[in-house]
Amino acid sequence: MVDLNALIEKITPLDSGSVEQARARQSQLTKPPGSLGRLEEIAVQMAGITRSVVPVVQRRAVVVMAADHGVTAEGVSAYPKDVTPQMVLNFLSGGAAINALARQAQSDVTVVDIGVAADLEHPNLLSRKVRRGTANMAREAAMSQAEVLQAINVGVEVIENLAEQGLDLVATGEMGIGNTTAASALTACFLDVPVEYVTGRGTGIDDQQLAHKVRIVEQAITHNAPDAAQPLDVLAKLGGLEIAGLVGVILAAAARHIPSIIDGFISSAAALVACALAPTVRDYLFAGHLSVERGHRLILEKLHLEPLLNLQLRLGEGTGAVLAMHIIEGALRTHQEMATFAEAGVSNKNA
Amino acid sequence: MVDLNALIEKITPLDSGSVEQARARQSQLTKPPGSLGRLEEIAVQMAGITRSVVPVVQRRAVVVMAADHGVTAEGVSAYPKDVTPQMVLNFLSGGAAINALARQAQSDVTVVDIGVAADLEHPNLLSRKVRRGTANMAREAAMSQAEVLQAINVGVEVIENLAEQGLDLVATGEMGIGNTTAASALTACFLDVPVEYVTGRGTGIDDQQLAHKVRIVEQAITHNAPDAAQPLDVLAKLGGLEIAGLVGVILAAAARHIPSIIDGFISSAAALVACALAPTVRDYLFAGHLSVERGHRLILEKLHLEPLLNLQLRLGEGTGAVLAMHIIEGALRTHQEMATFAEAGVSNKNA
Repeated sequence: MVDLNALIEKITPLDSGSVEQARARQSQLTKPPGSLGRLEEIAVQMAGITRSVVPVVQRRAVVVMAADHGVTAEGVSAYPKDVTPQMVLNFLSGGAAINALARQAQSDVTVVDIGVAADLEHPNLLSRKVRRGTANMAREAAMSQAEVLQAINVGVEVIENLAEQGLDLVATGEMGIGNTTAASALTACFLDVPVEYVTGRGTGIDDQQLAHKVRIVEQAITHNAPDAAQPLDVLAKLGGLEIAGLVGVILAAAARHIPSIIDGFISSAAALVACALAPTVRDYLFAGHLSVERGHRLILEKLHLEPLLNLQLRLGEGTGAVLAMHIIEGALRTHQEMATFAEAGVSNKNA
Repeated sequence: MVDLNALIEKITPLDSGSVEQARARQSQLTKPPGSLGRLEEIAVQMAGITRSVVPVVQRRAVVVMAADHGVTAEGVSAYPKDVTPQMVLNFLSGGAAINALARQAQSDVTVVDIGVAADLEHPNLLSRKVRRGTANMAREAAMSQAEVLQAINVGVEVIENLAEQGLDLVATGEMGIGNTTAASALTACFLDVPVEYVTGRGTGIDDQQLAHKVRIVEQAITHNAPDAAQPLDVLAKLGGLEIAGLVGVILAAAARHIPSIIDGFISSAAALVACALAPTVRDYLFAGHLSVERGHRLILEKLHLEPLLNLQLRLGEGTGAVLAMHIIEGALRTHQEMATFAEAGVSNKNA
C-alpha cells in the first residue's frame, strides 16, 4: 500500500532553472514577444515540470477510472447505473468518444475497473475493484478510510506501471453514473459554498430532478459531517472510487515529474482533493477544458487553473483533456522547432 | 480575371439534408445528447458544408498571403517593414510558428507573395505580386479597384489549384508589417464603430504609439471617405493586398464547399469583407481563435462566429486557425468513429 506522506514529499516545486532557460529560449524565437500567448506559458511550465528546457512528449495516456455510486439509489441521474459497465465495455471495444479522441491524439487508453457494481472481464481491462460501488452517501459514508487509501493506491500503481513503459503526459478520465453528484458534494465541501452553486445537470436531468439532486447532496453533507480540514475524510464520506483513484494518478504523476491534464468536473474534484493533500501538485496540472457543469468553473478558479479549451463539453471520460493534448503539443512544437531571430536573419528590434 | 458575381452566385446555403442526417447520427452515438457540445455542432456544420453526412478531412492547407503596407511610413508598427520579406523566407525554410503548427496538423503551407515590397525568389514561393506594397492609406487610396480585383483573383486561383490536388479544409494566414492598421481601418468602417474600439497593439506598440496609430487610421478613413455600402471600395481604400487575397480564398473555398478556418484579426477583416460581398459565405467559416487584438471580438460578434480557441494568441500567420484544425478533426473523429447505442449495447433511456 502507498505511503501517502512519502509520495507527497516527492512532489517538489517546478525546476526554476529550466523555467528560466525556457523563457529565455522563447524570447529568441521568431515572433513578437508574447505573441504566442498561452502556448508560451505552457512550454515554460512544461520545462519546469519535466526539468527539460525543450521538453518532448512521446508517450501519452488517458487513465479512465470507472466506478459506481450508491447514491444513484436516490434517483440523481438521468441514466440507470447499468450504463457504467456498458460504457466500460464500449471503451474496451474502442467505440466511445474517448477512444476516437485518443486515437486522434495518439494516446493510449487505460481503462480501470476500480469499483463497478457488476462483474466485468476483458483482456484489456485493469481489474482493480476496491468494492462494488460506493455506499449511498445520503445515508452513510461512501467509503471507509481504508478503501479510500486502497483506491488512491490503484491510481498510484497505474501511473507507476505506465511510467515504466515511458509516459510523458497523462490525461484523467472517468466513468460512473452518479459521479457528478459525488463531485458536487466534494466541491461544496472543499470550496465551502452552497450546494446549489456547484450542482449541475450531469448527463441531463430536468429542473425538478436538479432540485432533488441538490437536496440529496445537502443531505449527504449534513449526515456525514466531513471535516473539510481532513481531505481524506471528505473523500471517504462524499467521494467516489474513481475520484480517489484519480487522486492517486495526479499525485503519482507529479511525483514523477509527469504533467497531468485534468478533464472536466469529476476529474477536477479529484484535483481539488490532490491539491488539498499536496498544494505543490497544482503546478503539475493543466486544465483541459471548461465543462458546462456549473461547479467546474469554481474549482478551476480556486486552483488558479485556466482551461485550455471551452467547447461546452460535459461528457467526461477524459474527452476534453485528451483534446487539449493537441494544444500542449502545439506549445512544445513551436518551442522546439521555431527558428531564432539569429538563425532566420529576422530583425529583432523596433523600427 | 475572376468574375466576382459568378463566384458569389456559386456560394449556396448549406445542404439541409446532410445537416439533418448528421444531427440524427449524433443522437444515436453513445453519449448523453449534446454532451460533446461544440464538437457536435462542428460535425453537423461540416456535413452541411461538404454535403456529406460523415465528412472526412484528408487534405489540409494554410494559405499565408504576404504583403507590405504603405502606411508603415507613418510609424504605426513596432517592427520595420523589412521583417515582412524576412519572415516570408522564414516560412519558406520552415522556421516560423506556422510551420511548426502546420507540421503538427499535417497541413500544407502555401506561401504567396501577393505584394511584398522586396524582391523575393524561392522555389516554394508563389510569386503573385500585384504591386510592391500598398500606397500609404493615410494620404491616398491603398489600392486601385483593379488591383483589389487582381488580388482577390490571386486568392481564387490559389484555392482552385489546391482544390485540384484535393483540399478538404483551408486555414487563412497572413504576414505583413502594418496589417493590423489596415484591419482596424476596415473593421471601423464595416462595423461603424470608433477607430479606438478596434485598434490594438499589433506586434507590440506602447500607449503613445497606439494613440498615434488610432489617429492615422482616423486620418485614412476621413481622407479616403470610403463608401461602406461598397465593400470593394472600402477594401481598395483601406485594405491590404494580403487581405484582398484572403477574401478570394474565402469566397472560392465556399464556392467549392470547402470550409475555411479564419485565423485572427487580419484574417477576420478579410472574412468581414467576404461576408459583406456574399452573406451566405459565413456558414462556411469557422473562427479558429479569439485574438488579443481588440477589434477581433467585435468582428466575430458581427459575424455570429464563436471562436474555437482562446489562447491569447496575436501572432497571425494562420497559427490559431491551424491549431484549431485539431478541434475540427476531433469533431469529425467522434462523429465518424463512435459506436451507436445499438451497436454498443448501451441503454439509451432515462432511469
